[in-house]
Amino acid sequence: MSSDQIPGYTYGTDDVPDAPISMDEFERLQQTVLFDEDDEESLQMAGDVLEDQIDDVLDVWYGFVADHDFLVYYFTDGEGNPDEEYLDRVRERFGQWIRDTCETPYDENWLNYQFEIGRRHTRERKNEADDADAVDHIDMRYLVAFIYPITATIREFLADSDHSEAEVDAMYHAWFKSIVLQVTLWSYPYVPDENW
Amino acid sequence: MSSDQIPGYTYGTDDVPDAPISMDEFERLQQTVLFDEDDEESLQMAGDVLEDQIDDVLDVWYGFVADHDFLVYYFTDGEGNPDEEYLDRVRERFGQWIRDTCETPYDENWLNYQFEIGRRHTRERKNEADDADAVDHIDMRYLVAFIYPITATIREFLADSDHSEAEVDAMYHAWFKSIVLQVTLWSYPYVPDENW
Ligand code: HEM
Ligand code: HEM
Repeated sequence: MSSDQIPGYTYGTDDVPDAPISMDEFERLQQTVLFDEDDEESLQMAGDVLEDQIDDVLDVWYGFVADHDFLVYYFTDGEGNPDEEYLDRVRERFGQWIRDTCETPYDENWLNYQFEIGRRHTRERKNEADDADAVDHIDMRYLVAFIYPITATIREFLADSDHSEAEVDAMYHAWFKSIVLQVTLWSYPYVPDENW
Repeated sequence: MSSDQIPGYTYGTDDVPDAPISMDEFERLQQTVLFDEDDEESLQMAGDVLEDQIDDVLDVWYGFVADHDFLVYYFTDGEGNPDEEYLDRVRERFGQWIRDTCETPYDENWLNYQFEIGRRHTRERKNEADDADAVDHIDMRYLVAFIYPITATIREFLADSDHSEAEVDAMYHAWFKSIVLQVTLWSYPYVPDENW
């Protein structure tokens, strides 16, 4: 499915407000996670490796969520009933996000959409894109904690390619940096401005 | 130097308030980062490997901070003057923290001190332990972003041992999980309770 047909996916459209930080500040965050042009290239390579495995990656991640009631919770009405349509629609955007993560360099549209993804995890905008009736906020502690599983689980998929060990390593580290960078940006709506 | 002689280090003392979360919630966060007993053992092994290299690790981390004005900033008066005594005192506690990170399992004293470390990065308690006059708050975005450098840089030190590649990998992943877990806990004072 082409990305403009994914329900609720608004990357690059006028629906997405401008990022609240400057490209200079974004640059400093990239420096802090040691993200450079080599990482951009490694992510492009990762994009090629992952393209045919996206469904398998999502199976692992959704399986991980499904195994933990306190995580599934965020896809439920708060009374134990998961919203299957919501889960499916988000899954589609999650797949596209893997592509977007690998499609470097990151420009202003990319940066703007990061803040949108952040908001969609909070009571500011959760459920809106899918008109869902699920609980209205994902606690920030789980967002940060997810850095580990979302990073560690990708390695086997990157390794499932004919790239050298060194290239797999480079792709893995670029992915790790990008996840930390993105979760950092996504934390923005959770935190009073003067603390962020 | 034994840990009770480290200036400003109050781990396990009555000066440290109880953690604001239950051990059950802590358990859920551990599950989210896939932290288990094997990781506890790997961290103990890492503690032995790192013990004689602590100064070298700190040189790398302090060097990284020193290379970036926008990071050194948090050790300055806000007008470009780094507080050398503050840097030195914090360094001592940073070294001890490496030991504490490896000294598993994590109990209530450990958990309580995580929240104290979090507060010490914020305007709630920054500068107090050292009676310093530096800027009064470390922006949360850099705290989260530091997950990458603090994790990635440890690997070469873990590898500088006579452990097998598989053991080095296990130590590295246990370290990675622990850093994500700790930064998750440290984010607590930055965020309104209902968002965290
Ligand atoms: C590293 C951490 C995480 C990553 C990479 C991630 C990724 C994503 C992505 C790409 C989307 C779709 C964005 C879009 O609308 O285009 C999304 C939405 C969502 N995620 Fe996450 N997520 C993370 C953490 C979490 C956690 C901890 C939960 C809770 C179990 C969660 C639950 C959800 C939900 C419920 C939505 C739908 C939000 C809405 O209503 O629009 N996510 N996530
Ligand atoms: C993964 C991220 C980080 C780790 C593991 C870390 C670790 C530590 C540790 C162990 C301490 C001493 C705690 C104690 O008092 O016992 C400390 C304090 C401190 N850290 Fe961090 N830190 C991180 C992020 C940052 C960042 C991004 C900065 C800004 C450059 C920073 C600057 C400081 C300062 C200024 C103190 C002294 C706080 C005080 O006044 O007591 N840290 N950090």
